[in-house]
Amino acid sequence: VVGSGDDAAVTVPGGATAVSVDALVEGVHFRRETASLHSIGHKALAAALSDLAAMGAAPGEAYIQLGIPPDLDAAGCLEIADGVAAVAAAHRVAVPGGDVTRSPVLVVAVTVVGHAASAERFVRRAGARPGDALAVTGELGGAAAGLLLLERPELAAGLEPSIAEALRRRQLEPEPRLDAGRALAEVGVSAMVDLSDGLGGDAGHLATASGRRLTIELGLLPVQEGVAAVAEAVAADPLELAVGRGEDYELLAAIPDERLDEARAQLAGTGLALTSIGRVTEGEGLKLLGPDGRERPPGGFDQLGDRPERSAPA
Amino acid sequence: VVGSGDDAAVTVPGGATAVSVDALVEGVHFRRETASLHSIGHKALAAALSDLAAMGAAPGEAYIQLGIPPDLDAAGCLEIADGVAAVAAAHRVAVPGGDVTRSPVLVVAVTVVGHAASAERFVRRAGARPGDALAVTGELGGAAAGLLLLERPELAAGLEPSIAEALRRRQLEPEPRLDAGRALAEVGVSAMVDLSDGLGGDAGHLATASGRRLTIELGLLPVQEGVAAVAEAVAADPLELAVGRGEDYELLAAIPDERLDEARAQLAGTGLALTSIGRVTEGEGLKLLGPDGRERPPGGFDQLGDRPERSAPA
Repeated sequence: VVGSGDDAAVTVPGGATAVSVDALVEGVHFRRETASLHSIGHKALAAALSDLAAMGAAPGEAYIQLGIPPDLDAAGCLEIADGVAAVAAAHRVAVPGGDVTRSPVLVVAVTVVGHAASAERFVRRAGARPGDALAVTGELGGAAAGLLLLERPELAAGLEPSIAEALRRRQLEPEPRLDAGRALAEVGVSAMVDLSDGLGGDAGHLATASGRRLTIELGLLPVQEGVAAVAEAVAADPLELAVGRGEDYELLAAIPDERLDEARAQLAGTGLALTSIGRVTEGEGLKLLGPDGRERPPGGFDQLGDRPERSAPA
Repeated sequence: VVGSGDDAAVTVPGGATAVSVDALVEGVHFRRETASLHSIGHKALAAALSDLAAMGAAPGEAYIQLGIPPDLDAAGCLEIADGVAAVAAAHRVAVPGGDVTRSPVLVVAVTVVGHAASAERFVRRAGARPGDALAVTGELGGAAAGLLLLERPELAAGLEPSIAEALRRRQLEPEPRLDAGRALAEVGVSAMVDLSDGLGGDAGHLATASGRRLTIELGLLPVQEGVAAVAEAVAADPLELAVGRGEDYELLAAIPDERLDEARAQLAGTGLALTSIGRVTEGEGLKLLGPDGRERPPGGFDQLGDRPERSAPA
C-alpha cells in the first residue's frame, strides 16, 4: 500500500504470513572477484525466498538492507539493485522498502514476507511420518561444483563450456523453488526444508524437527551434469559435492506414498523433476547409505577444506 | 505461531501490517569503545521500533540479523541479545526469528513488523494540512549532547552527574515512542514522522511528503536539561544539537488545532510532554525561525564536524 519513502511499508496480508531473514556478507558468503554485483543481488534475494519456498508460501514482499563499502559507487549499487529486481520480477515479489548505510564491506541483508490462507497451510520441518517417502526437487551438487570452477577456472578445461557455465550459474544465481514449494504444499506433503546448507545438514534438521529417522540412499541422488567431472578433477567424491555442500536451494520433502505420483505430476508442470531418495521411519537422526550399501557420516566426508559459510538461521 | 527453528516464522496478522528495516554498523553508527554491547542491542531494536511509532502502529514482531566479528565471543553475543530482549519485553514485541553470520565488523540489522486494524489507521508523512499545529513529543538535543559526552568525557566536568548520565543514556539507549505514537494516531493527527535524522531533516521529509510548508519557531523547542551546557562547552549553538543532529527518536506530528488539547492529555498519560513548535501553511519546504526572528537554514548551522551517520531509509 505504502512504498518506500514513509517510515514503514504498509501491506494488508489477509491471512497468515511467513517471515524469513537472510544476509550475505562480503568475504564470508561471496567475493567480488568471482561474483558480479548483479549476481550478488540476485543470490541474496533468491536465498531468502528459498526459505519461503520451503514453507510452501506465496511470496509477497522483500525488504533490502544494503551496507555499502567505500569503494562501491552509485552505479555499483544500481547493479546490485538490478540483480534483486530481476529475481523480484521473476517471482512477482514487491520490494516496498529498504535501508542503505555505509559499511566496511558489502552487506546485503534481506527480509522476505510470504503468505498463505491460514497458518496451517504452511509446511513445517516437523511433520515427517513413518512410511513417508523422501523426495528432492531438481538436481544437486551444481552449486558446489560451480564454486570450485569460479575459484579454480582451470578445472573447467575438460568440461563442455555450456555445462561449466550452468554449474557457475547454479552457484552465482540460484533459483528459489517457489512454484515447486507451493505445488508440494497443495499436494499435501508432511514436512519440507530447503537445501541451503547441504543435504546432510538440512535433512538432519528435518529429522530432528520431526523426531523421526530419515534414511537416504546416496546412489539415488539426482546429481547435476558435470559435477562428477569437477569432483574427479579435485580428487573428491561427487557425493561430497551433492551432500556435504550447500546452496543448491532445492527442496527436500517427506511425502506420503499415495501422494507421490501427484506430487511428481505437479512438479513436472513447473519444469522440475522430483526424485525419491529415501524413507522416513520410526527412530531418530539421519542415516546416509552409500552406493556400496555402507553408511556414510552426514557431514563426515568433507575432503575439500574450507568452504564459504552459509548463514545459519538463529 | 512458529518461532525460531523452522525455515520462516509464521504469524496471523489479521489486519494491516507496517514493516520497517534498520541497521547499525560498527564504526558507522556506534563504536564499541563508547557503547556497551547491551546498549548496541537496545538501540538497534529501539531505532527500528521508532519507525513503527511514527506510523502509530502497535508493535508486533522483530527479526534480528547479527553479523558477528572474529573478536566477539558467545558471551558478547548474549549481551547484545539481552539488550534486544530488554526493549522487546518493555514493548511486548516478539522476536520469533533471526539470522547469525560472520562479519568483519559488528552489524545488527533489524526488521520490525507492526499492526493496525486497517491500512488507513496508519499515520503517514503525507497528510499535513494548512492550519495544523506542529507538535513534538518529549525533549530534543539529548542524544547529540550525550554523544559529545561519550566522545569527550571531560565535557561532563561542569554538569550534575545525574544530568550527564541522562544525556549519555539518551544517546545509548533511546526509547521508541510507541505508546505516544498510538495515542496520537487515535486522537487523529494529520501526519507524523520520527526524529531519527534530526528535526531539520525529518521535518523537511514531512513537508515534502505533504506538499506543504512547515514553519518551526526554534525558540519553542523543548531542549533537554544539560544540552545548553554541553553546547556551551564546545562553543556550539544548543539549537544545533536539537535541530541539526538526530537520534532523539521523538515524534513530530501535524495536528488540527481542535485536537491539540486532547492529544496533549493523551500523551500526559504516557508520561510525555507534547510541545507546539510551529504551524503548517500552504506552500512548500521547511522554514526554521531562530529566537531572534531570523530564518535559519535547516541543515546549515552545523559547527561540530563529522557526526555518526544515521542510516537512511531507501
